[in-house]
Amino acid sequence: MSLSAYRQLQQRFARLGRLRDAQGILHWDRSVMMPAGGADGRAEQLATLDVICHEMIADPEVGDLLAAAEGETLTDWERANLREMRRGWIHASAVDAALVEAKSRACSACEMAWREARPLADFEMVLPFLEEVLRLTIEVGKAKAVRFETSAYDALLDEYEPAARAADIDPVFDDYAGFLPDFLDQVLARQAREPAVIESRGPFPVERQRELGLRVMQILGFDFHHGRLDVSLHPFTGGASGDQRITTRYSEEDFSSSLMGTIHETGHALYEQHLPRAWRHQPVGGARGMVVHESQSLLMEMQVARSREFLSFAAPVMREAFGAQAEDRAWQPDNLLRLYTRVSRSFIRTEADEVTYPAHVILRYRLERSLIAGDLRLRDLPGAWNDAMKTLLGVVPPDDRLGCLQDIHWYDGAFGYFPTYTLGAMAAAQLFDAARKSIPGLATAMSGGEFKPLVDWLCENVHGKASYLSTRELLAAATGRPLDPAVFKAHLKARYLH
Amino acid sequence: MSLSAYRQLQQRFARLGRLRDAQGILHWDRSVMMPAGGADGRAEQLATLDVICHEMIADPEVGDLLAAAEGETLTDWERANLREMRRGWIHASAVDAALVEAKSRACSACEMAWREARPLADFEMVLPFLEEVLRLTIEVGKAKAVRFETSAYDALLDEYEPAARAADIDPVFDDYAGFLPDFLDQVLARQAREPAVIESRGPFPVERQRELGLRVMQILGFDFHHGRLDVSLHPFTGGASGDQRITTRYSEEDFSSSLMGTIHETGHALYEQHLPRAWRHQPVGGARGMVVHESQSLLMEMQVARSREFLSFAAPVMREAFGAQAEDRAWQPDNLLRLYTRVSRSFIRTEADEVTYPAHVILRYRLERSLIAGDLRLRDLPGAWNDAMKTLLGVVPPDDRLGCLQDIHWYDGAFGYFPTYTLGAMAAAQLFDAARKSIPGLATAMSGGEFKPLVDWLCENVHGKASYLSTRELLAAATGRPLDPAVFKAHLKARYLH
Repeated sequence: MSLSAYRQLQQRFARLGRLRDAQGILHWDRSVMMPAGGADGRAEQLATLDVICHEMIADPEVGDLLAAAEGETLTDWERANLREMRRGWIHASAVDAALVEAKSRACSACEMAWREARPLADFEMVLPFLEEVLRLTIEVGKAKAVRFETSAYDALLDEYEPAARAADIDPVFDDYAGFLPDFLDQVLARQAREPAVIESRGPFPVERQRELGLRVMQILGFDFHHGRLDVSLHPFTGGASGDQRITTRYSEEDFSSSLMGTIHETGHALYEQHLPRAWRHQPVGGARGMVVHESQSLLMEMQVARSREFLSFAAPVMREAFGAQAEDRAWQPDNLLRLYTRVSRSFIRTEADEVTYPAHVILRYRLERSLIAGDLRLRDLPGAWNDAMKTLLGVVPPDDRLGCLQDIHWYDGAFGYFPTYTLGAMAAAQLFDAARKSIPGLATAMSGGEFKPLVDWLCENVHGKASYLSTRELLAAATGRPLDPAVFKAHLKARYLH
Repeated sequence: MSLSAYRQLQQRFARLGRLRDAQGILHWDRSVMMPAGGADGRAEQLATLDVICHEMIADPEVGDLLAAAEGETLTDWERANLREMRRGWIHASAVDAALVEAKSRACSACEMAWREARPLADFEMVLPFLEEVLRLTIEVGKAKAVRFETSAYDALLDEYEPAARAADIDPVFDDYAGFLPDFLDQVLARQAREPAVIESRGPFPVERQRELGLRVMQILGFDFHHGRLDVSLHPFTGGASGDQRITTRYSEEDFSSSLMGTIHETGHALYEQHLPRAWRHQPVGGARGMVVHESQSLLMEMQVARSREFLSFAAPVMREAFGAQAEDRAWQPDNLLRLYTRVSRSFIRTEADEVTYPAHVILRYRLERSLIAGDLRLRDLPGAWNDAMKTLLGVVPPDDRLGCLQDIHWYDGAFGYFPTYTLGAMAAAQLFDAARKSIPGLATAMSGGEFKPLVDWLCENVHGKASYLSTRELLAAATGRPLDPAVFKAHLKARYLH
């Protein structure tokens, strides 16, 4: 019995998918359960699995099978699967195992140094480690660039967002950078004239916060038969196919950040939970890329959860969870809406509102492109960062902890990731706009706590498509056109300037 | 640069060890964390890792490397490592991947059928599945028997307890089966004359039970930097090297079973935590086998925790955890000692006392040998089980739920495992006897809650030896002689007949 080349590839990638699932659980455990002393061993387990996965996919035999499979009779989905297999194979085979391992080690060392350096605001301390990470990242980017016939930066982008190219991102980001200063002034002026926001006062017991989070997850359609909610220092969505684990963290002083974070991760998890089961463990059956992934979390957090409709539904639920407030107007939907749409010029990306968030991303995108191109020396990064903050947001961080040391990404070797946040935010606005236009009575349903029509629409137009279409095709099929930043700006104008 | 054959083997087995560690965490997660819907995916992840591990070790190249390494200059520990590598290679290469996978699938199917059949006491329901498991187990046993030059049953025994042979176990078990009836009559008659045991009354809040368990683990020396305590339906010790996870379950009506279970698992975990770090992930660096492993859990649970010394220390700790009792004599050490050394004729192995437990094991050992030899048909198992219960313990289970359906082992393909429980109990008695003789003031230390001298002795004589010595050599080095069942009987006489 001899299997077709396609079937052989299918088996190999299924095995790979199962190992990636195993890694997903091991990563989750590391952040949620593992005792500190297990860290070295866990790093070894994960590195061993990485090496095995790399060997499995970079194998020259895969190249032969891919070539042979091109000539076989395949369905459309199988052909798309083959395309995704090829993409994975190019990423893996472009770099040899020694480089993969060297980068992995450099990232681990740099991340550890960063954990120490950040609270001390000491960029010098981590600089030599980051130099090594950048050097190896450039080496990886160049090796992949040859195979993809792109720039090194585009090849790195492709790891997170297949087919993304800086040439397409530049105009989108330049446009927003031009739009922001005036718009931000107007929004801030307007918010200064509005009634003061009344913040509800804690303590908000962790157990009640957890119950509220679980209730909202349930309402949004999270499948607890195939997932969990837990606690970790840095919230994330992880786990394995059919076993989605999301995390949050609780502060007794503030329930909103955990609630909004839980909704954000629920958006990610719903995407994963609704990927087509028939294509589980196959490349075409995975999430499309980080732009679409982020669009799903931001659609839930920004488009849904910070809307008047959601908050009018959620206000009594919150009040029920935490009880009356001294100033009970705190639970009024109008007040909550002002609370959850406050805008400010701030230093920290992860705490930024949706209006200024893109500025944080544009800054990082421009800097990392210069770093990869060799146009900016790492030694000059803190200064360049602060200059860019001044230009984009009009504020300058007092130290590098609030500046170029704030994010883990670069220190962990992730260059090319940042733009996906803002492209995802834009895609979220566009998808939600299309959903609203095609689902009659969506606003009313949302005000009544009914999200099934929305989630069904997402299932059909996004989740169920997995990686069958490109991001561009997926957006075009779902909304009638590829990414259009005008929809995002229209959303901001409607929400923040009425 | 060319590595010696030994170094190549070392690298290969290190990789294997890391994958086994990864599996340990995935197994733990399955029992403690995983949502039900993750089961299929998890089975696939574990099976994929099994196949990869099997390929890695059954590879013919390993045989060549083993032969080449025999001629290299090695230290004693390296030579012992080579011996253990060879043993692992024989187990793996004796059976082909198709048989391994077929058995794995048959076991999964049978275990699932057993989970349904057990509560219904319906042996017929699981019989066809068990037939298939037994058939494949015999096939595995026969294939390994050729390589080990033993019987099929001895080859299966060797999976759990290297070098164990039925010919050595028979006289030990026959002797105990002869000793038990009269001894049991005497113990029961004596206990009938003693003051009635006062049972403390619940509810015992789960949180207090958990705190008590953690406190006792700490006192016994469990390293929480490298381990955790959690909850699962069936308590076990698992996890990875450097990350030992033990589990328990709580009943608000009875705190003792969780406490004693936690102490039992702590014994297992201490062994794993004290294995020599320098040999981590190498075969010689692993636990010696199930007899020594069980000796460590039973030493803590049976020899230590049910002793007058431990209970006089623990009584006020328990009282502090749960508060005063209506009849406060419940917390008196004498009463606790009677409570924790009660003996009875019972149906369920896992609930049996240390006097009757060996009868449950001897029964299973004799039956499984007959099954593997083809002398007993599975169809006749329930009757044979009940006959043996009548002979050994004088009671007959009312149904198969309390009889041959009670244990998961056979339904999960584990034939040859049962004898290690009783051999472990005997080894525990012998090791504790030797420890007591060589540690001045051990009884006094234990009464004062001081267990470091004992644990240090175990570290030196058992834990730190890993798989360097055979079980026989290890016991001889630690106690002056190989396994001697007379020590176990002397322990029982001293404890139960004074």
